[in-house]
Amino acid sequence: MADPHRVVVIGSGFGGLAAARALDHRSLSVTVIDRTAHHLFQPLLYQVATGILSEGEITPPTREILRRQANTHVVVGEVTDIDLDTQVVSWRNGDLTMETPYDSLIVAAGSTHSYFGSPQFAEHAPGMKSVDDALRIRGAVFGAFETAELLTDPSERMPWLTFVVVGAGPTGVEMAGQLVELSRRSLDRNFRTFDPASARVVLVEAGPQVLSTFAPALSKRTLLDLRRLGVDVRLNSQVVDVDEFGVTVGSTTGSGTERIEARTKVWAAGVRASPLGERLSGATDTPRNRAGQLAVLPDCSLHGHPEVFVVGDMMHLPVPAVAQVAIQSGRFAARQVLARSQGRPTEATFRYRDKGNLATISRFRAVASIGRLHLTGALAWLLWLVVHLIYLVCFKNRLLVLIHWGISFLGRGRQERTAPQAASTPHPIATPVDAPSLFERQAT
Amino acid sequence: MADPHRVVVIGSGFGGLAAARALDHRSLSVTVIDRTAHHLFQPLLYQVATGILSEGEITPPTREILRRQANTHVVVGEVTDIDLDTQVVSWRNGDLTMETPYDSLIVAAGSTHSYFGSPQFAEHAPGMKSVDDALRIRGAVFGAFETAELLTDPSERMPWLTFVVVGAGPTGVEMAGQLVELSRRSLDRNFRTFDPASARVVLVEAGPQVLSTFAPALSKRTLLDLRRLGVDVRLNSQVVDVDEFGVTVGSTTGSGTERIEARTKVWAAGVRASPLGERLSGATDTPRNRAGQLAVLPDCSLHGHPEVFVVGDMMHLPVPAVAQVAIQSGRFAARQVLARSQGRPTEATFRYRDKGNLATISRFRAVASIGRLHLTGALAWLLWLVVHLIYLVCFKNRLLVLIHWGISFLGRGRQERTAPQAASTPHPIATPVDAPSLFERQAT
Repeated sequence: MADPHRVVVIGSGFGGLAAARALDHRSLSVTVIDRTAHHLFQPLLYQVATGILSEGEITPPTREILRRQANTHVVVGEVTDIDLDTQVVSWRNGDLTMETPYDSLIVAAGSTHSYFGSPQFAEHAPGMKSVDDALRIRGAVFGAFETAELLTDPSERMPWLTFVVVGAGPTGVEMAGQLVELSRRSLDRNFRTFDPASARVVLVEAGPQVLSTFAPALSKRTLLDLRRLGVDVRLNSQVVDVDEFGVTVGSTTGSGTERIEARTKVWAAGVRASPLGERLSGATDTPRNRAGQLAVLPDCSLHGHPEVFVVGDMMHLPVPAVAQVAIQSGRFAARQVLARSQGRPTEATFRYRDKGNLATISRFRAVASIGRLHLTGALAWLLWLVVHLIYLVCFKNRLLVLIHWGISFLGRGRQERTAPQAASTPHPIATPVDAPSLFERQAT
Repeated sequence: MADPHRVVVIGSGFGGLAAARALDHRSLSVTVIDRTAHHLFQPLLYQVATGILSEGEITPPTREILRRQANTHVVVGEVTDIDLDTQVVSWRNGDLTMETPYDSLIVAAGSTHSYFGSPQFAEHAPGMKSVDDALRIRGAVFGAFETAELLTDPSERMPWLTFVVVGAGPTGVEMAGQLVELSRRSLDRNFRTFDPASARVVLVEAGPQVLSTFAPALSKRTLLDLRRLGVDVRLNSQVVDVDEFGVTVGSTTGSGTERIEARTKVWAAGVRASPLGERLSGATDTPRNRAGQLAVLPDCSLHGHPEVFVVGDMMHLPVPAVAQVAIQSGRFAARQVLARSQGRPTEATFRYRDKGNLATISRFRAVASIGRLHLTGALAWLLWLVVHLIYLVCFKNRLLVLIHWGISFLGRGRQERTAPQAASTPHPIATPVDAPSLFERQAT
């Protein structure tokens, strides 16, 4: 038997996992490298952050998903270099350094949030791209209510009850909606010194509309729904500063700035491709766009390197940065790798089949577009529910997620409110107040 | 209407929560203070550590449990002082410092593990008393298998596949059993460079038997079951040293020591009452035993302070340090508080009603004693399952736990394998090996 064709897949997100699954062929020897041991179902990360789901439900272990794929080796490590000439990927795990040669390479390292040139914002306004991010935000959100319970002065308490979400894409909209549901329904009767429903959720968006990639009618409907729900939506508003105590917002159309005192900030704006793109760009003179995405050839391959494919959020093609693109381009790349390894002709162009757009606003309320069909309200929400259950990777997780949704959406429970202590330290309880006798007052 | 009788409960574990629930009376004003916002169902913490349950399932928020108890105020804070003369509890949360006066006080601050005078062991052999502990151990356990997958030299790999559990009480026995199940069943086909079933689980016990508080026949049966399962049980063995790379074990009956190379160590030995006990002891000349437990009066009150009750793991009475004692003594203390506040006579003696003893060894196998009745095997395991479901605090958690148990015990899944990155850092990947060409070997 001939030596197997060696394929390395970098990343186990939507793109990498779809590629790895499509590479299930005995003539191939596949290695999947990712910094974590799990696949991450990112669209539901905000539900981990707001206490609806556990982290395990959206992070099936990659090696468990691929356990029956005997040709595939899953390893945990951080890629440090890609040598396109010698065709070797260098990576490390702690002090262990490794080199893995490849005949074909699929780069699916994804993206992170973009702070638009102000990386210092990250300290006070964490993004939501990993389990650690989500647990950190969970700790901050529930911790803010705990702190509010200890303060008697409304002017001190309100900043702890103000939540600013930056960016009104699907993640920002969903996060804002869930924060409102949390404060209005889930925490009902939980506190004695204030009403959690008095919490304020501010959604800051630099553009003129929310969900800007959706049809205008759906954007408008979403804006209306959000405002009706009680979200303070600020359009044409740009964050110009973030610190421990709040954010400063400037108008993109007029002048002047406004200060919003808020202890908890969540960043859900912008896309920034993995730094691996920079390396590949430098080595091949491939241009990158402002988001750091690589201008790949129409077949997702790197110019001059037909054996290297860049898929998902890392590639710059006229397609959006969504999960469906990552999945489809991952599968497409895998198909080309298999064809090349067998000497069959490859396809010249990756064609994205748009399956539609979906975003939830709150329970029983969502917007969806499938081709020209627009759905809103409960019907869109049911579609959202079914689609997300289908795309969750394993059956057991589907079952558990469905039960957690029942608890949270039919009931008012949030079964996953506990965050590891370490996760909440970035938002320490701060002002040195000698809060006078909250309980003396209560008790006498 | 008269001023309400002010009660402070320190701790929201089994003792504190049972007390708080029993204090649901409009003539009382109750404040519950705990370092965390949740009640912790400690007996299942090992299942969080081994990936069966999510942390949320065993940590219902205390304020959610007590939300309909309008006379009860739940706050998160660390008690820094108790002034028995002025009857004030001082506590803090971050920089906030608070003082809460009481008419009656119930101290239920619980216990932690005892390292028997060697606190430095804690760094490398974490105990399992909090959610953070359990997630840290989860990260270490699954991380050890990940590292093993990267090593080719068996002498380097084996320390990562060796797990030492110190202490063969119920927690140690259950942890050891679950580690075996994990390696033999759950991780089946997950790895390519080694067989996870080759992992070694060592249970180190200083005494002459496992489960020493159980009847001798059940101890013997458990020892037999553990060994049949593949656990390397070392009786009469004391840990004399722990470091990053392993433990040194000495015989308590003979002489000589043995070194066990093991990257992952879990401490499940000894009980050490909360340091608050020391403070109360000093202020009242109340003696403490070696475990730091206070010699309270037969009615759980502090000598000279009939208004102060010490319950659960913190009190020294001729009863074991188990959840049932904490629950019953917490309720007893609450009853006395209510009686005192109403001028009714109090009971002179707390009487523990032993409801029996239970420990699981592996799926479908447990030991149980109820009075003189001894059960083993599947019947005992079913009893264990039913009892634990009953004592879980909320119905929704019962449902979710039951499903997770179905997945893990009927199936082989572990749905909660993901640990926050921060949780696994205490066990970094260490030896600076330039591991040569694991994948070159595999690929050519």
